[in-house]
Amino acid sequence: MIDQASLAAAIADRASFAEAMFEEARAASADVEGVTRPAWSAADMAAARILEREAKALGLETEWDAAGNLYMTLPGQDRAARAVMSGSHVDSVPRGGNYDGYAGAVASLVVLAACRDLDVTPPVDLRAIAMHGEESVWYGIAYVGSRLAVGALPAAELDRLVRADSGRTLAEHIRECGFDPDALRKAPPPVTPANTRAFLELHIEQGPVLIDRNVPVAVATAIRGNVRFPYARCLGAYDHSAACPREYRQDTVLATVELVSRLERFWHEQEAAGAPDTVFTVGKFFTDPAEHAMTKVPGRTDFTLNFGATSKDFQEAARAEIHRLAEEIAVSRSVTFELGECVGSDPTPLDPVVRGHLRDAAAGLGIGSHEMATVGHDASIFARAGIPAAMVLVRNQNGSHNPHETMELADFIEGVKVLGGAMLAAAANP
Amino acid sequence: MIDQASLAAAIADRASFAEAMFEEARAASADVEGVTRPAWSAADMAAARILEREAKALGLETEWDAAGNLYMTLPGQDRAARAVMSGSHVDSVPRGGNYDGYAGAVASLVVLAACRDLDVTPPVDLRAIAMHGEESVWYGIAYVGSRLAVGALPAAELDRLVRADSGRTLAEHIRECGFDPDALRKAPPPVTPANTRAFLELHIEQGPVLIDRNVPVAVATAIRGNVRFPYARCLGAYDHSAACPREYRQDTVLATVELVSRLERFWHEQEAAGAPDTVFTVGKFFTDPAEHAMTKVPGRTDFTLNFGATSKDFQEAARAEIHRLAEEIAVSRSVTFELGECVGSDPTPLDPVVRGHLRDAAAGLGIGSHEMATVGHDASIFARAGIPAAMVLVRNQNGSHNPHETMELADFIEGVKVLGGAMLAAAANP
Repeated sequence: MIDQASLAAAIADRASFAEAMFEEARAASADVEGVTRPAWSAADMAAARILEREAKALGLETEWDAAGNLYMTLPGQDRAARAVMSGSHVDSVPRGGNYDGYAGAVASLVVLAACRDLDVTPPVDLRAIAMHGEESVWYGIAYVGSRLAVGALPAAELDRLVRADSGRTLAEHIRECGFDPDALRKAPPPVTPANTRAFLELHIEQGPVLIDRNVPVAVATAIRGNVRFPYARCLGAYDHSAACPREYRQDTVLATVELVSRLERFWHEQEAAGAPDTVFTVGKFFTDPAEHAMTKVPGRTDFTLNFGATSKDFQEAARAEIHRLAEEIAVSRSVTFELGECVGSDPTPLDPVVRGHLRDAAAGLGIGSHEMATVGHDASIFARAGIPAAMVLVRNQNGSHNPHETMELADFIEGVKVLGGAMLAAAANP
Repeated sequence: MIDQASLAAAIADRASFAEAMFEEARAASADVEGVTRPAWSAADMAAARILEREAKALGLETEWDAAGNLYMTLPGQDRAARAVMSGSHVDSVPRGGNYDGYAGAVASLVVLAACRDLDVTPPVDLRAIAMHGEESVWYGIAYVGSRLAVGALPAAELDRLVRADSGRTLAEHIRECGFDPDALRKAPPPVTPANTRAFLELHIEQGPVLIDRNVPVAVATAIRGNVRFPYARCLGAYDHSAACPREYRQDTVLATVELVSRLERFWHEQEAAGAPDTVFTVGKFFTDPAEHAMTKVPGRTDFTLNFGATSKDFQEAARAEIHRLAEEIAVSRSVTFELGECVGSDPTPLDPVVRGHLRDAAAGLGIGSHEMATVGHDASIFARAGIPAAMVLVRNQNGSHNPHETMELADFIEGVKVLGGAMLAAAANP
């Protein structure tokens, strides 16, 4: 077995190999600003074919599944043993950044390239995967490619999901890219716990934490779930602001302010009581532009509520608190809350053993790291399918989902070193 | 001197006289719904000319000033003594109600008609006035006609103020109605403390209080002033709602929620400590529709703040509290508040003696009444010009400034009885 330091050195030597792939993909999908790689399009296929070409040049096995996910395999000593898999998605949001997704696909190939450079044959297959449709903007749901890889998307969705920019179905786009939606309806999924022992994903952080902490990488503790109310509103009555004394008002701004203020207090109290990794966001809060005025008591306020948490208990408590407070405030302030549909997802724990491999790799290589919860990624789909999953996050600048997103190549290489070390550790542990 | 009961009976006998004027004015200014009487227009002049015609038929002296305000005078025994004046405005908001303003102009003429019916010669002149431009929607400021009557509008404003619907100046509209803006620039004001001992205005309540109290009239205690921030905003940073932990956020909704919540608490505390007749309204509160999303930390929130109060001390305290809280919250939440221009007006006390005449008239006639603060009206301009002023408010349905505004004729007549009794009391007291 190879030592971590040698693997890390070989990965560092592959920096310009990675950079060339990033720049080629960027050029192939450049928009007015940033990049646009719709899921199952010429642009995201171009990004995947760059990986395929390089994998072939490295002598790796390459294969596409019926959905168009690309697998690049470095054969192990025991070809029958469950493989270690790593990768991410090749699509991007419109005018997004080049690294959200693609960094993880490139990273997995860089690990395999470094193993090739060192002439290592790992104990089991190491497989890189490049997927489509992680971004929910294209088909309305996230993780389409990874769901298809593990068999977690009902076949009916192939004809129901419609791409936002084209109006055409997922099945049509898969076929247009040269793949076979009909085979997908029948074939068993290509990735299962029976053939895959672990899934590791490298992804840019998308937030400011690692910049602030001054470390290049983080190991994710869990993927947060959400409790979301996208279409909540408060209904009261419009009144003359000066002619209507308080006791007669049905003021929807003050009622919603009380709701939000008390939910924020609930959030703080839960955190103080030990609920980890929670977030609370009211992204939209608006009176009606057709009716509102400085001199009118506001008769309608629309808003969103969005709690994220790694604890299902916290999510249940948040949902209950939202309903309890809305009912209480509706009575005390003579308004009506219509909370609307509650959507969201359960939190996804990440595998403690694979997380340990990532932590150990960072520690062994002397790479400063941090542990933190993260948001939904393809890794959550593998975890839910019963495949031990973990993630390494790479420090990046200017967030994500915007053309200013960026990432230092040196930070990326540190992340790949941690990823590679953990992949070999997972390969060595049954 | 005539007794109050006889005057009240004569006023009651003039109910259909009043009703006919209301209906004629309504027909002359009917819009798709409600009425539209722009200030200095054919429509509000039509409403004024109905009053002029009826005043002439009653044998009253009629006169227009250079601004187009109409005066209808019942001569008193001492023509040199200071007159008692009553009236209100003839303009309305677009698609507004028929009674906001016009009720007060009609009421003043009904009092004079009842005196004629009883063949009363009051000790001093009783003068009814019908004014233009009380509604700020037309020229951007309120009380234009009453300001001109007392000489409280700088001459330069005649050419600067532009009517919102026509784009033409106040001077042009005054001239088009047959009056003389150039004379206005030179002539002394027609209404002064030297020729007017009291101004009494009847107006619809515009709110729900009298319906709830089940009384037809109220005597106003004072006219509230305002502290208003029409263009306040909070600036922070947009971030990925799940990727950005709390300590890194610059969340403008939560910051503005805290500001509003604490201002509401300040309002309650001030009321509990005895500050009378205060109102607090956040009529607009909105995230940016071009940028906001359920999954984004909101980087910008616009809002208005509007405190109304009869106490100047309260207004000063509110203004100071707004600035203090905005500074404190900006620091604690890493956002910036740009409060923008602070506009508003001082509260206007109403005259205790004239208010007493109104209270006494209501009590003497056994008319249920209430005392309450009110919003800005023409009366405030006379009060600020040094003329003792007071107001009687009449119960009305469906608020004001909308086509559903209405008023029971019986309530109006009760209000006119109180007004007439108080006018005669003011006429009898030097």
